[in-house]
Amino acid sequence: MAAFRIGIFTSGGDCPGLNAVIRAVVAAASQHGWEVYGFIDGFEGLLSPVRYRILEENATVGIASLGGTILGTTNRGRFATRVGLGQIQQIPKAVLDEVWETVEGLEIGGLICIGGDGSLTAAQQLFEVKLPIVGVPKTIDNDISATSISFGFYSAVEFVTQALDRLRSTATSHRRVMVVEVMGRYAGWIALFGGLAGGADVILLPEIPFHYEKIAHEVRKRIAEGALQTMIVVAEGARPDHGQFVTQDEETEKGVLGEIRLGGIGRHVAKMVEQMTGQESREVVLGHLQRGGPPTALDRNLGMLFGVAAVRLVEQKRFGEMVAFQNGHVGSVPIREAIRATKTVPPDCEEIAAARAVGIAFGD
Amino acid sequence: MAAFRIGIFTSGGDCPGLNAVIRAVVAAASQHGWEVYGFIDGFEGLLSPVRYRILEENATVGIASLGGTILGTTNRGRFATRVGLGQIQQIPKAVLDEVWETVEGLEIGGLICIGGDGSLTAAQQLFEVKLPIVGVPKTIDNDISATSISFGFYSAVEFVTQALDRLRSTATSHRRVMVVEVMGRYAGWIALFGGLAGGADVILLPEIPFHYEKIAHEVRKRIAEGALQTMIVVAEGARPDHGQFVTQDEETEKGVLGEIRLGGIGRHVAKMVEQMTGQESREVVLGHLQRGGPPTALDRNLGMLFGVAAVRLVEQKRFGEMVAFQNGHVGSVPIREAIRATKTVPPDCEEIAAARAVGIAFGD
Amino acid sequence: MAAFRIGIFTSGGDCPGLNAVIRAVVAAASQHGWEVYGFIDGFEGLLSPVRYRILEENATVGIASLGGTILGTTNRGRFATRVGLGQIQQIPKAVLDEVWETVEGLEIGGLICIGGDGSLTAAQQLFEVKLPIVGVPKTIDNDISATSISFGFYSAVEFVTQALDRLRSTATSHRRVMVVEVMGRYAGWIALFGGLAGGADVILLPEIPFHYEKIAHEVRKRIAEGALQTMIVVAEGARPDHGQFVTQDEETEKGVLGEIRLGGIGRHVAKMVEQMTGQESREVVLGHLQRGGPPTALDRNLGMLFGVAAVRLVEQKRFGEMVAFQNGHVGSVPIREAIRATKTVPPDCEEIAAARAVGIAFGD
Amino acid sequence: MAAFRIGIFTSGGDCPGLNAVIRAVVAAASQHGWEVYGFIDGFEGLLSPVRYRILEENATVGIASLGGTILGTTNRGRFATRVGLGQIQQIPKAVLDEVWETVEGLEIGGLICIGGDGSLTAAQQLFEVKLPIVGVPKTIDNDISATSISFGFYSAVEFVTQALDRLRSTATSHRRVMVVEVMGRYAGWIALFGGLAGGADVILLPEIPFHYEKIAHEVRKRIAEGALQTMIVVAEGARPDHGQFVTQDEETEKGVLGEIRLGGIGRHVAKMVEQMTGQESREVVLGHLQRGGPPTALDRNLGMLFGVAAVRLVEQKRFGEMVAFQNGHVGSVPIREAIRATKTVPPDCEEIAAARAVGIAFGD
Repeated sequence: MAAFRIGIFTSGGDCPGLNAVIRAVVAAASQHGWEVYGFIDGFEGLLSPVRYRILEENATVGIASLGGTILGTTNRGRFATRVGLGQIQQIPKAVLDEVWETVEGLEIGGLICIGGDGSLTAAQQLFEVKLPIVGVPKTIDNDISATSISFGFYSAVEFVTQALDRLRSTATSHRRVMVVEVMGRYAGWIALFGGLAGGADVILLPEIPFHYEKIAHEVRKRIAEGALQTMIVVAEGARPDHGQFVTQDEETEKGVLGEIRLGGIGRHVAKMVEQMTGQESREVVLGHLQRGGPPTALDRNLGMLFGVAAVRLVEQKRFGEMVAFQNGHVGSVPIREAIRATKTVPPDCEEIAAARAVGIAFGD
Repeated sequence: MAAFRIGIFTSGGDCPGLNAVIRAVVAAASQHGWEVYGFIDGFEGLLSPVRYRILEENATVGIASLGGTILGTTNRGRFATRVGLGQIQQIPKAVLDEVWETVEGLEIGGLICIGGDGSLTAAQQLFEVKLPIVGVPKTIDNDISATSISFGFYSAVEFVTQALDRLRSTATSHRRVMVVEVMGRYAGWIALFGGLAGGADVILLPEIPFHYEKIAHEVRKRIAEGALQTMIVVAEGARPDHGQFVTQDEETEKGVLGEIRLGGIGRHVAKMVEQMTGQESREVVLGHLQRGGPPTALDRNLGMLFGVAAVRLVEQKRFGEMVAFQNGHVGSVPIREAIRATKTVPPDCEEIAAARAVGIAFGD
Repeated sequence: MAAFRIGIFTSGGDCPGLNAVIRAVVAAASQHGWEVYGFIDGFEGLLSPVRYRILEENATVGIASLGGTILGTTNRGRFATRVGLGQIQQIPKAVLDEVWETVEGLEIGGLICIGGDGSLTAAQQLFEVKLPIVGVPKTIDNDISATSISFGFYSAVEFVTQALDRLRSTATSHRRVMVVEVMGRYAGWIALFGGLAGGADVILLPEIPFHYEKIAHEVRKRIAEGALQTMIVVAEGARPDHGQFVTQDEETEKGVLGEIRLGGIGRHVAKMVEQMTGQESREVVLGHLQRGGPPTALDRNLGMLFGVAAVRLVEQKRFGEMVAFQNGHVGSVPIREAIRATKTVPPDCEEIAAARAVGIAFGD
Repeated sequence: MAAFRIGIFTSGGDCPGLNAVIRAVVAAASQHGWEVYGFIDGFEGLLSPVRYRILEENATVGIASLGGTILGTTNRGRFATRVGLGQIQQIPKAVLDEVWETVEGLEIGGLICIGGDGSLTAAQQLFEVKLPIVGVPKTIDNDISATSISFGFYSAVEFVTQALDRLRSTATSHRRVMVVEVMGRYAGWIALFGGLAGGADVILLPEIPFHYEKIAHEVRKRIAEGALQTMIVVAEGARPDHGQFVTQDEETEKGVLGEIRLGGIGRHVAKMVEQMTGQESREVVLGHLQRGGPPTALDRNLGMLFGVAAVRLVEQKRFGEMVAFQNGHVGSVPIREAIRATKTVPPDCEEIAAARAVGIAFGD
């Protein structure tokens, strides 16, 4: 009799800890005597009967410490189900049929999708046509509301923190304002946690529209008090309060918001602060550096717990569910509930309150 | 009118994140317009009217990223209140009087003690003679039951993980068994979390007495399966199951346990495994390397939250209480409750269950 | 009798290892019983009788491991002597007089200037009006011809290398072209050494004008051979071969070169490669991240050797000389000789020959 | 016609940079259209016609950043040619015949041996029976006299430096003496370069027998001057000056030297310093941690240069030669000359002179 066989794939932007999940799935499946097929390049791998490789237990030793995903991923392609925020597009029936054929043809008894919001929305659609799929949440931004924490987030925060450590010595030596742009289009968790740990003086989040005058005031106050530098961390999605500016569609690429869209918010903040305070300002965009590299210990362990839990969901035939971390434990929720809401930073959360208590400014 | 004045000191073994607490206390106090006196070398600083330094806001910028404690610490001295596990010794009245004199003389309105089990026991005694003291838990081993997590722990885990990454390449290249001894006399949290993240094949904890035959069996099985190396993580307090050996007092330094006490459990495990399997084995003792270095982002943020919370306890005159992290939030508990029990690793916890599910052995 | 007194300052862009030089100067001076005055903010500190601080031996312990400079620096100000490449402007006599007054007034018997090309040019002018000055070369780009190596360079190279390690996992996971822009306006040493160590497939240097068609060809060839990603390292000063484009002054900000000047060469290369090959391309600009952080062991030791050598130059009254590393040893050269030529990468050097031998492309 | 075929193997203790050499050899050979056979587990691989794997260009991408050796190695076995220092044992004729058979049978036209002193001695014997062998020097201790630098050394020095950074915060916080034992049985290069970069106060080398009284004096002097800690770096082969002790054979495991042999010199120094000064002292043995992990940029580049040069030696049929770095360039020397002498630290070298100039003590 052939061994029970599961499939696994990674989808969307890469994130530290993906390989830890894959490793745990393979190792746990191996304890059950199951085979694991790894589909290549995310959902795209499901559209071909040959775009997979068999993942042996021995061949995955040590991969948990590697960044990226050994299976490849893509955040484009025929499965892209989110056009804009909240808009959901149905996967064409022809595509669903192709997936069916692959999964049936390869006799896959359980399919593990590691992905973010968009990918999970697609996974839900596959589940609704009776594919035996379970989900593992992947969000470097930590913005999936159904799980209180996910792997990759703290690795990104750690990198931001170490980058701030590096940049502070230059900022101090040159008596500069240093503006550091970090990930976070809709949710500012990385900016908040990284900014706090890295000693930022000002933190700008998408959740708290900021006033340039407040930032300039903070910089001037610090200089007056003898501070040698000001470190500003800005999430890529942070925006100035519209009241200050002639608002216009960012898409038109005109005016202030268009300028921000083209050059990045970091560059704009640096330019404005230098203009308003006369203080030499520089910006650094951390970009893709935040995604790569070895995951932190915490993220590797979270990846392992998630991978083991995903195998258990398959074992218990709880398809349509997604692994989630809630109240300090790994459990699961229906995928359809997980994709409903984005978890943004509450402006009155514990960390922001503490940050304000130590004198950190948020631009409001 | 003179400013309100608080005191702060660090006590017991050093731990990444101490400076993050100190920084947050100084910054939060500065927002209140309070003065902060930092007592030098732990409780010893309280015995002298001059063994302190005034901590200015400007002078503590950036210290959160530094290992150790800028105030110094000691785990010896006239305050040592724990002789063995569970035995509590009263602080002599003369010593209490000296402390009173210092605190009164310097007009300290609130005293923040950052310390572990033993130090908090002493702090409780100070509180009982009406000193305005509050506590911040410090335990790199993560073994204070009143707080679900404390700063420093994840920094140690991170170092252990990176050390395992380094050692695996040598172990693989030489087809060796590598035994890595880590901190954890009574609680195996560092061995467990570090071992999991670092890809250990065998993890030995104080909470799970181990059998050498089981370890040897694991090593032999791995070789048979083609594994190139075996990584064993052992907590310093892990011990072989007594049934296997003629048990005797470890203190007498005779027999197996005496040998372990003198040479370390890591060396003993390496020796036994090499004898029993014929496989070349090496041990590495991580020792003090686990304590130093910059704290991780998580530990810096935890330190900040704890420092801010400690200042709030003083503000609210909730003396005799200790900051604690519970159910995902920072709150507080009476110090006397916090020092009652050591939080050890439950052998049936989620992480161990997951580890077993991926084939990791625990020696039982 | 008053102790002999020396002055020290750091000038120009900051660079890992500056504090190692300062530490060594203070420690070596302390062995002689000399006092050390540290002037603040580079040459600017010499214009004021109070802009210095006395550097005590004890207070400089451990600074060698810190990035930046504890003395501050500036690359602007009244001393800026280089308008463009090769153009030298004389320091106004009034400014020279002010410096004289400071140095005489404070009874400085020897002045150590740690700086780059421009700063050393100013130092030479101070020497010519009989100020007792010696130089220490500072060039993170490694482009001062009189010294075969200088501190800071290898720290920058190490960061570039680690950044490439991080970025490769993302590039591979997404099957992308990743373009990494690094420092090096006139000399491509950082791009060359960092690119080689970090496993770049294409390296673009200021010294070797490149053809976009060659890069696109390389990318296509790699895809055909099954490569999952292409890593391109580009020095900020690298430029396409003019023959390919309607050349025009970069200053006019029109056409291709203007576009490069505004957006950076990295962005331009990414855009062109994506257009020409259809392969998804991303750029990352390492910027200021390359300057900060703790110096590598090699740079700390080089800093120490240079600091000790500078004190020896003062001791031997060999003013007007600059410390230099030549033929494997630390010696000295006249400052006026050191500032004559920029050390660029010879296109036929050993490293480029080896790189070509392993199949790395240079765009030519 | 079959492609020209070369063989490669790594021998002796592992060392960062081995994979960089392997990668460069494979990539350079691939440019020539050659095949590369990688023999497994050092010389042992040469004794079997099947103990190798074909190294494809694509499969070695990215390995230069990995510690250890993907080919495995051993420092034991039938080829061990050095019993003690300077004693050379001939490889038995039967073993030589087996190697001949493997190399002929597989039609290997050139064999690249990456190894240390002992391995190169064996390689020379293979050359003398007309095997087409060339050498690449591997010595983490930097003690092969024919090459001024070798890969792996600076990676070890970097780790020692970072370990000292970590340990200093603990030592300072606890006002302790910290003794750090590092690699270096006969040559103290790692202790010297790592100690200098890591800010050691006392450095003990095999080349400079030390007096405990001098170390104790240094510790007492530092305490008197207000130093908060003393960092002592000791090479594993450093020994106290024999005049101070009843000398006896270290092999007999009696007396002082026997104690050092069993417990390590680090532990002995810590014990003696604590006894003599009353100052709390701790030791840390860095051991295998120094060997693993990703090589530094410098070591990767050196590995690449050496790999390319080895392929060139094969191409030019310059068998019996070894790659070497001399006078700033990569060249070659006859293997038989390379194995004659160990390169120890000259007690009057530039680095020691500079170290003494800044007040660092060497125990003499």
